[in-house]
Amino acid sequence: MEFTVAQIAQLLGGEVKGDPNLKINKLAKIQEGDLESLTFLSNPKYEQFVYSTEAGAIIVSKEFQPRAEVKATMILVDDPYTSFSTLLEEYQRISNFGVIGIEEPCYTGQNSTQGNGIYRGAFSYVGKNCKIGNNVKIYPHVFIGDNVSIGDNTILHAGVKIYKDCVVGSHCTLHAGAVIGSDGFGFAPQPDGTYKDIPQIGNVVIGNHVYIGANTAIDCATMGSTVIHDGVKLDNLTQIAHNVEIGKNTAIAAQTGIAGSTKIGENCIIAGQVGIIGHLQIANRSTIGAQAGVGKSMLKEGESILGSPAMDYSSYLKSFTVFKKLPELRKRIEELEEKVINLHSL
Amino acid sequence: MEFTVAQIAQLLGGEVKGDPNLKINKLAKIQEGDLESLTFLSNPKYEQFVYSTEAGAIIVSKEFQPRAEVKATMILVDDPYTSFSTLLEEYQRISNFGVIGIEEPCYTGQNSTQGNGIYRGAFSYVGKNCKIGNNVKIYPHVFIGDNVSIGDNTILHAGVKIYKDCVVGSHCTLHAGAVIGSDGFGFAPQPDGTYKDIPQIGNVVIGNHVYIGANTAIDCATMGSTVIHDGVKLDNLTQIAHNVEIGKNTAIAAQTGIAGSTKIGENCIIAGQVGIIGHLQIANRSTIGAQAGVGKSMLKEGESILGSPAMDYSSYLKSFTVFKKLPELRKRIEELEEKVINLHSL
Amino acid sequence: MEFTVAQIAQLLGGEVKGDPNLKINKLAKIQEGDLESLTFLSNPKYEQFVYSTEAGAIIVSKEFQPRAEVKATMILVDDPYTSFSTLLEEYQRISNFGVIGIEEPCYTGQNSTQGNGIYRGAFSYVGKNCKIGNNVKIYPHVFIGDNVSIGDNTILHAGVKIYKDCVVGSHCTLHAGAVIGSDGFGFAPQPDGTYKDIPQIGNVVIGNHVYIGANTAIDCATMGSTVIHDGVKLDNLTQIAHNVEIGKNTAIAAQTGIAGSTKIGENCIIAGQVGIIGHLQIANRSTIGAQAGVGKSMLKEGESILGSPAMDYSSYLKSFTVFKKLPELRKRIEELEEKVINLHSL
Repeated sequence: MEFTVAQIAQLLGGEVKGDPNLKINKLAKIQEGDLESLTFLSNPKYEQFVYSTEAGAIIVSKEFQPRAEVKATMILVDDPYTSFSTLLEEYQRISNFGVIGIEEPCYTGQNSTQGNGIYRGAFSYVGKNCKIGNNVKIYPHVFIGDNVSIGDNTILHAGVKIYKDCVVGSHCTLHAGAVIGSDGFGFAPQPDGTYKDIPQIGNVVIGNHVYIGANTAIDCATMGSTVIHDGVKLDNLTQIAHNVEIGKNTAIAAQTGIAGSTKIGENCIIAGQVGIIGHLQIANRSTIGAQAGVGKSMLKEGESILGSPAMDYSSYLKSFTVFKKLPELRKRIEELEEKVINLHSL
Repeated sequence: MEFTVAQIAQLLGGEVKGDPNLKINKLAKIQEGDLESLTFLSNPKYEQFVYSTEAGAIIVSKEFQPRAEVKATMILVDDPYTSFSTLLEEYQRISNFGVIGIEEPCYTGQNSTQGNGIYRGAFSYVGKNCKIGNNVKIYPHVFIGDNVSIGDNTILHAGVKIYKDCVVGSHCTLHAGAVIGSDGFGFAPQPDGTYKDIPQIGNVVIGNHVYIGANTAIDCATMGSTVIHDGVKLDNLTQIAHNVEIGKNTAIAAQTGIAGSTKIGENCIIAGQVGIIGHLQIANRSTIGAQAGVGKSMLKEGESILGSPAMDYSSYLKSFTVFKKLPELRKRIEELEEKVINLHSL
Repeated sequence: MEFTVAQIAQLLGGEVKGDPNLKINKLAKIQEGDLESLTFLSNPKYEQFVYSTEAGAIIVSKEFQPRAEVKATMILVDDPYTSFSTLLEEYQRISNFGVIGIEEPCYTGQNSTQGNGIYRGAFSYVGKNCKIGNNVKIYPHVFIGDNVSIGDNTILHAGVKIYKDCVVGSHCTLHAGAVIGSDGFGFAPQPDGTYKDIPQIGNVVIGNHVYIGANTAIDCATMGSTVIHDGVKLDNLTQIAHNVEIGKNTAIAAQTGIAGSTKIGENCIIAGQVGIIGHLQIANRSTIGAQAGVGKSMLKEGESILGSPAMDYSSYLKSFTVFKKLPELRKRIEELEEKVINLHSL
């Protein structure tokens, strides 16, 4: 995407000082960038960079009084930070939703319907009886099984795989390689040491405004649904097992795994590489520290835990502080023992 | 899939009380479901739901005496639990093996053979000199490299990638995004700080009745084979390095990683997020707790370990119980020291 | 690939004792192999296997004096180990770069250029304005977004996904399912408990001779670039967040995760399942043990850490040694307390 400085200034209601025809194709931090970059000055601490930046153009405040020569073309606005944020959002909107049309070959099964403004990348696959909403973006190598529905304005990046019967809401973003609806990991041990499959016939239901990271896996329910509620954010390489339920606006960082049938509340924050065993309840607004191993339910709202097995956050840190001194502590015990023996023998 | 209540009753050898023409398209728990759902009552504790369920039909015992009006159509059988299990399995069998035929475009290299009853999803790829057995289901975006053989009744879900020369047995299920046969992670450090690739020319050999979860990765051997024996169950996002061998009927939960050349015995149970370093031996029937970090071989059969570094299971829990009290323990030591000083000065 | 013993001997400048027309199609360890395998004897410890090996041919030293009958055809060379290594490398070179040509259907967007000697697998996708170098191997189901450039001699295995605007150097290997350039995980919490997306408009820049394992995910920068420098080796299922920078020749084992904006130095060795939080600096030649949880920068070069939270390597092991004895230690404290009370009451 390429715009002139004049076009950008018009969008922001700003004034140009310099070359209005200069062509801009990226946004950059003030210390980075090249002649085709636009940057901004908001924090006065960074003023020095205004005079040295390699960026072709820079958004500054109308109040800004340069103390030296500024080589870059300037766009003068009321609030440079807000203006730059507006551009960032506009940039992302265009790059997300500007992609429209059908590339061939792509595959669509019988009785499937597709809304307006959609993108179908080459080699994308939509099964039978699917409902694809308006402005849905289906990148190359996406697989959508039979009977799946996808809400409006949802983006499925390259290679997302959605098994049959699943439901994805609107305004969701699923990143490359995410797998939705794979079988739950359920086996019944047999007397001869082998395992028999427990049929996994449920699905996954994903709400609106949900974000799912690259190569994350969400298993279908044994029966019923694995449910990811509105506004949930799941980072890359996360594992969500069968029949898990994740409450509204809960955010989970990369490589965390949640075992079967656990119910996570709303507005929880779960850090990276956490493991949570099955059949637990995690109350609303819980915080779970990185690499924690959660083996018990968190029944009271708003608590924080850490450690493996996980315990109260600050207690863990206090215990760990002593853990670091354990060799010294052992020595002190040995010394005490010796002294006490001496006292006895007095 | 849709069946009438009459069809289902016939399959189960049951008797219909209500509407035999009612159409059923899903199986549900008794508290869930809608008019097109079939559910069952086995545990008497749940009897109350018989009168309130939204399900269209319900499997009950021939002995069942309703104490109030039942709106749902009933199918009367000898043993409702067994009947429902039969339906679950039948449902899964149809949904796994009912898919037959070749969707276009798909790619098949020279000298590859395919059995009867197979499914080839659109955009699936089979290289040269491959042998694909009977009833194999190859979903869209599956990649099968040259010289690969796949046994009868194996299901490869969307986007499975199998590198050249690998062998997959029969009755296996590989879930979406699983990667079989990627290079082992082997590099020789050079004097200048760079690394030189160690050629990885082996393959992966997978037995029968093996289950491999979504986005799991199994590397090929440096030479020879990485071997996954019959009946092994690997959950999602698992990492199996080069030259690992996993014995029969061992089950491994999500996000566990096993480093190069480690040999795991038969009928082991390994929980989630476990890490096992390379070149170890893990005896048959070992149990390894979640998030354990295994740095030593387990040479005796049937033992359990936990912790990082891992140690005997119950010893770890005992030590951890004291860990939680470490700040208190330190205080007691300080108090002792003070008292002992006082005693000395007496 | 199949060669006669005579062809191999010629390549190695060796002499044949036995059947020069024997056909060889694999390389094997001396204890393994079949009639179509070639093996070697270097370490005298393994001499016994020369007489029993099932391999059709064996590379031995010119000096080798058999003490019994050798069934296998022998190739006599100066240095068997070096000769075998040469063959391994040659084998891998052919299997990596012998694949040439365009399989159909594949998709190429406008204004994209492709070098000589490339492979384009069926169903591979290259967007608009891409530059694909010489000898690049693009396997089936690879997705390359718009404006991406790929250097010479780079191999993209099946199903690799590269988002728009990313840069990949030359002589790189990306394994199946790796995702490059997915959005950074960045959200601004709103007063009502929901999250607003922070636009992620940067890219990923990957140097030369970089190795990226199967199903690894590398997020794009919020602005600017996530940078993976020359010679970096990343194992399978690794997570690299937005704006991370990884210095030259650093090797990272499987399932490790690095949070946003952390800078890793050169020639570091990071073991498996490590977690590193965001905005840290890790000095050159740092070593981080398996499953460590790194919460602080490592500012001094060449140090080693372990544990979660991570601390000095040998200190951690010393503390852990005492941790294992904690129940005993508690008992000794209890005994001391009793003795001290007794002393007081004397």
